[in-house]
Amino acid sequence: MSMHSSSTDSRVGALPQPYLLFLGDTTEPGYAKTAFGLRDWAADRCVGEWSCGATVSTGLTTLTPVEARARGARGLVIGVANAGGVIPDGWIGALVEAMEAGLDIVSGMHMRLADIPQLAAAATRLRRSLIDIRTPPHDIPVASGRKRSGKRLLTVGTDCALGKKYTALALARAFAARGVAVDFRASGQTGILIAGGGIPLDAVVADFEAGAAELLSPAAAPLHWDVIEGQGSLFHPAYAGVSLGLLHGSQPDAFVVCHEPGRTHVLGHPDFALPDIEEVIDLTLRLGRRTNPAIRCVGVSLNTARLDADAAQQLFSRESRRLGLPVADPMRGGEAFDRLVAAALEEPARG
Amino acid sequence: MSMHSSSTDSRVGALPQPYLLFLGDTTEPGYAKTAFGLRDWAADRCVGEWSCGATVSTGLTTLTPVEARARGARGLVIGVANAGGVIPDGWIGALVEAMEAGLDIVSGMHMRLADIPQLAAAATRLRRSLIDIRTPPHDIPVASGRKRSGKRLLTVGTDCALGKKYTALALARAFAARGVAVDFRASGQTGILIAGGGIPLDAVVADFEAGAAELLSPAAAPLHWDVIEGQGSLFHPAYAGVSLGLLHGSQPDAFVVCHEPGRTHVLGHPDFALPDIEEVIDLTLRLGRRTNPAIRCVGVSLNTARLDADAAQQLFSRESRRLGLPVADPMRGGEAFDRLVAAALEEPARG
Repeated sequence: MSMHSSSTDSRVGALPQPYLLFLGDTTEPGYAKTAFGLRDWAADRCVGEWSCGATVSTGLTTLTPVEARARGARGLVIGVANAGGVIPDGWIGALVEAMEAGLDIVSGMHMRLADIPQLAAAATRLRRSLIDIRTPPHDIPVASGRKRSGKRLLTVGTDCALGKKYTALALARAFAARGVAVDFRASGQTGILIAGGGIPLDAVVADFEAGAAELLSPAAAPLHWDVIEGQGSLFHPAYAGVSLGLLHGSQPDAFVVCHEPGRTHVLGHPDFALPDIEEVIDLTLRLGRRTNPAIRCVGVSLNTARLDADAAQQLFSRESRRLGLPVADPMRGGEAFDRLVAAALEEPARG
Repeated sequence: MSMHSSSTDSRVGALPQPYLLFLGDTTEPGYAKTAFGLRDWAADRCVGEWSCGATVSTGLTTLTPVEARARGARGLVIGVANAGGVIPDGWIGALVEAMEAGLDIVSGMHMRLADIPQLAAAATRLRRSLIDIRTPPHDIPVASGRKRSGKRLLTVGTDCALGKKYTALALARAFAARGVAVDFRASGQTGILIAGGGIPLDAVVADFEAGAAELLSPAAAPLHWDVIEGQGSLFHPAYAGVSLGLLHGSQPDAFVVCHEPGRTHVLGHPDFALPDIEEVIDLTLRLGRRTNPAIRCVGVSLNTARLDADAAQQLFSRESRRLGLPVADPMRGGEAFDRLVAAALEEPARG
């Protein structure tokens, strides 16, 4: 499996690795998904974690920037993504301390590091780099809507931050293990840090959103699969437009719905009930058919990190019967996930 | 009626008026909607038109920049918006000539004037201003999804460039004529030039799209109406994400579907059939209910510029019976439009 995207900024390949993961003052685990993602999918490139008052932890060794530098770290990665992608004033002292210890700063936030005067001044003084990976390419075209060769799978969700990236990474890994030509296509900052390429789709100007999705998964060999990391949710009161542009531009042949059992409301929006899985399937089919009439749902991915193994297996069986689809947790693997992978790779029934 | 938006860049109020309308080398009338919009809604601020090989005309007097300056023009407005918002190399000589004649340049294109070296150099040399009105404010929040006081109407469409802005302007004018407190809220470059304020929603970073729509129509008095200019179409292969973010953030109580009879395919995308009006109503209701469960369709606006008066009236009657809704062309006014305005202002039936 190649984790690289041929269409993206080659600069990302030169990120200062290995990383020290910075957790800021984060108390909400849902916002630390960049740090968790790097721990889970790029552990060999993470030396430890550091924070300025966070209650969230990746479980990696806590190291000061000086200690991390001594163990080989070259970059401090901001491992959290709060709503809006803002770098709070309270983090700036810590980021300067990291630069003083010899680390470059890597950020996937919307706010650009170089736009914060204290950071810009410290970087100049200390000759360190401020690297914003949430910067899309400059030459994104308006979407054409034209069908591209190759096969595509998109992960979609009932909400943000519940497994779309992990599901895509696990599916790409499983496809490769079965000898299928596949690329993981990263659409968000954590995926880009893991894959070494991609396009930060939530940072693209709205008119070019579907065009960016077309660029992210270019025409490929007929049997090649792109497994595309989804963003947001069609039911999210702030981010649904991002999800729709990504859906239209990806033109997926197949999609997997990602959900966290027990989550009842949109993260950070307690007035918004989460949609049912069936609603997400139905709306994704309806909207996705606009650019790929053959779109189909091939399964459901449940994030069962909070359940024990027996409860998870029972849930997969029950939901699979109810929905008539494979249901699995990619992080647990097993027969349930094998069935989901097989359904994704199966040629759809005709007519 | 106030055409001003209190939430937008005050700089727009200082645009160099009156205008000379520049049509570039445009041959597709659908792309000249900025020039047509200014002619139709701000004629008192337009001295004439000019081009470098366009076959499209507004019908205003053709004037060179020198002649326009002599008649009082202070700005040349780029009156066309091609796909992608790019300023072709072939226009640059003409834009420099306009500056040499003493005109500032006003653009609503995505490409920024100051990013074109020849224009930047000429502006510096000639002490002229390059004004990009497609620049959104810097402080747009992520959408909250919270209900705001006041009433809102959004114009939606079966496609781009078929009457969403004209319909919103005509409705706002008609509301005001009936003594209703109302603001027209501009979401695109032409609307902003007409209204003197607004937010260019297609130029906002995708994550903030719905947030920008919330900012565009802030909380207001309970009986006040915002009539919001729609963008794109939920069925557009490139711009649907823009339309969904605007729908979610606008939280409209009422919407009007805009359509051009006889248009069968998406402008610039001949492989994409236009949706039926009923499909647009159904999908707008389904998606709009996410942020306003009380959303309702109050009528259909048909752009009948290519029909004669009898054919238009027959079409309104036939479509109104078929759809069970008021159907009118706001530019023709008359009883059909009065019924549409009345339906929009009517209190919705309970339960």
